[in-house]
Amino acid sequence: MIARTPEPPYWAVIFTSLRTDDDDGYAAMAEAMAALAAQQPGFLGVESAREGLGVTVSYWADLESIRAWKAVLKHQAAQRAGRERWYADYTTRIARVERDYTKASSELV
Amino acid sequence: MIARTPEPPYWAVIFTSLRTDDDDGYAAMAEAMAALAAQQPGFLGVESAREGLGVTVSYWADLESIRAWKAVLKHQAAQRAGRERWYADYTTRIARVERDYTKASSELV
Repeated sequence: MIARTPEPPYWAVIFTSLRTDDDDGYAAMAEAMAALAAQQPGFLGVESAREGLGVTVSYWADLESIRAWKAVLKHQAAQRAGRERWYADYTTRIARVERDYTKASSELV
Repeated sequence: MIARTPEPPYWAVIFTSLRTDDDDGYAAMAEAMAALAAQQPGFLGVESAREGLGVTVSYWADLESIRAWKAVLKHQAAQRAGRERWYADYTTRIARVERDYTKASSELV
């Protein structure tokens, strides 16, 4: 689903990845991390799709929320396993959302 | 592919969308717009996947490059057709990338 985010500014973590052939434990871990992220303070939503390349964007109220999520121990263990087993390559980008518009708001213009 | 972007800061346009059932002309227009975007000054790369939800992130050198791309007439016509025919819903977010890291840089930490 398209995330319902508040008025900017807020923050986005753009995670793009290529998977390895190793599926062992991946789906369960991805689901567990999505559930855990949704419980974090400052979490605003997530949008994700994979088609060979995976593109996941999570939204956060501020940089402190992103830092706190990064420091969660279960998340760190998942990231380590991701690096070692599940992701052939990835890039993470931390970005400040300055403005946004939706289909509904575009139609008003 | 994962985009090879320069050192931050640079800009990201995060476009998330849900399609209608109307496929007429969509693939050709998407391909034409991707080719046209790649020719714009300040274009740095694009990452895209669709799995029901489509998530496309394009990267730009600065806000002026994004504005100039938005003003390209063929792009405006495509956006109008997108609103009217191809997209049931979408959100566009303009964000400033403040930092990034890759799998290779994470493994050095």
